[in-house]
Amino acid sequence: MARLSLNQATIKRATVTEAVEGCARHGIESIGLWREPVADHGLERTAKLVADAGLRVSSLCRGGFLTAVDNRSAMDDNRRAIDEAAALRTDTLVMVVGGVAADKDLIGARQRVADAIAELSVYAAQAGVVLALEPMHPVFCADRGVLSTLAQALDIAERHESVGVVVDALHVWWDPDLDAQIVRAGPHIASYQVCDWLTPVPADVLLGRGYPGDGDIDLDRLTRHVAATGYSGDVEVEIFNAAIWAADFDEVIEQVTRRYHDIVEPAL
Amino acid sequence: MARLSLNQATIKRATVTEAVEGCARHGIESIGLWREPVADHGLERTAKLVADAGLRVSSLCRGGFLTAVDNRSAMDDNRRAIDEAAALRTDTLVMVVGGVAADKDLIGARQRVADAIAELSVYAAQAGVVLALEPMHPVFCADRGVLSTLAQALDIAERHESVGVVVDALHVWWDPDLDAQIVRAGPHIASYQVCDWLTPVPADVLLGRGYPGDGDIDLDRLTRHVAATGYSGDVEVEIFNAAIWAADFDEVIEQVTRRYHDIVEPAL
Repeated sequence: MARLSLNQATIKRATVTEAVEGCARHGIESIGLWREPVADHGLERTAKLVADAGLRVSSLCRGGFLTAVDNRSAMDDNRRAIDEAAALRTDTLVMVVGGVAADKDLIGARQRVADAIAELSVYAAQAGVVLALEPMHPVFCADRGVLSTLAQALDIAERHESVGVVVDALHVWWDPDLDAQIVRAGPHIASYQVCDWLTPVPADVLLGRGYPGDGDIDLDRLTRHVAATGYSGDVEVEIFNAAIWAADFDEVIEQVTRRYHDIVEPAL
Repeated sequence: MARLSLNQATIKRATVTEAVEGCARHGIESIGLWREPVADHGLERTAKLVADAGLRVSSLCRGGFLTAVDNRSAMDDNRRAIDEAAALRTDTLVMVVGGVAADKDLIGARQRVADAIAELSVYAAQAGVVLALEPMHPVFCADRGVLSTLAQALDIAERHESVGVVVDALHVWWDPDLDAQIVRAGPHIASYQVCDWLTPVPADVLLGRGYPGDGDIDLDRLTRHVAATGYSGDVEVEIFNAAIWAADFDEVIEQVTRRYHDIVEPAL
């Protein structure tokens, strides 16, 4: 269980304190944090809370949303996110880069992301933080992330010292070029995240995630490929799911640890 | 308007007779048919109906669903679909290849599709029918189509005489490699289909299609690229949308012709 990280979005209703205490009760040594609940608890207080609990912070979610033609305020916000990651002593800031703007110019949006990351990477390097570009499932291309493949994210990450990639099973599992791109991603993998793809897709497509093993993804195979690259970091379980969000925190964390133990850990 | 084809799924409640009469009333010269309503009307009767109306049949939808480990009954059904396409005097059978099987073996499913298409292509060639492989948006990879990119479909189509590809705007618009793959697709494009990607995605992701111009796809750019390959076939408007399905047929066909005229035709 040493590499399991609970992404706090999996127990979305929990405060930072409840999430940290939940990890402690279940022997989880690492946590993935989100900026909004961290801000609610206070940045320095959160840093102290996780340090006192002996937890690693596997990542902070999220920077990004850089596709607007005028993204100056977004750039400011991303610099703040980098500072917050540093304050929380995580080296991984997850970047959800943003969707297509009203001009429908997908290629332009992708170029703006590349340019913005190039600029932010200098600031990130100074802070000791890696910008972890998250390629997103193409269902989110319009409104959330125009980086649709691991290959695209790597095209940017390979150009900059403090830029890496997130391999999130839900976002990449369908990719016909996945095996080759995971090999290529090896030294650039900043985060490996697992959950499962549920069919049918629920009414809110954002919430179509299930516990590892409940969906269509061959997580054993994917995890073996990621492990074969030499990735030795934490494995975050991040699940957006209305029923899981409504459930008791301890029941959810219990399921997370069980699925991790049964499905993910043997493949690492 | 000479190249506009009304895919009958756009007015899903319509019978074949109503769809054919609607095309005639609005000066549309081509129709995309589906097997189920054709069977309801009778295959030979439908062939006579469209011929008497002077309509081309731009495509028949659909064969496919070939990913099961035992796909023998599916193969039989696909041979029937090829016969039906020939009887309707269309040279294009749209192939929705099927999703991931219960074994979660995506790579195996894709191989089964390639093998099945190789076998069916011989039968299709004898019937004078092209199997038009439809790469599907990755949101449908689990349950509907494991060919997720135009590149994958072309990898198969390039190997066989009577296999081509469908370029459906909704399925391919997000692809970072789209421009290059459309150039490659040129001689293999059996069908070009347009609609638009709606955000937010509705409760049933299958129905997240809008009239051209109502969503996030730069249809002008895509259509220009398709036209630049020399594609000179029909352009089908195929929209799955609950509100459009509930609307009056003539209003829908009127919108289809208007959007085609305003957005698609100038780019051809």
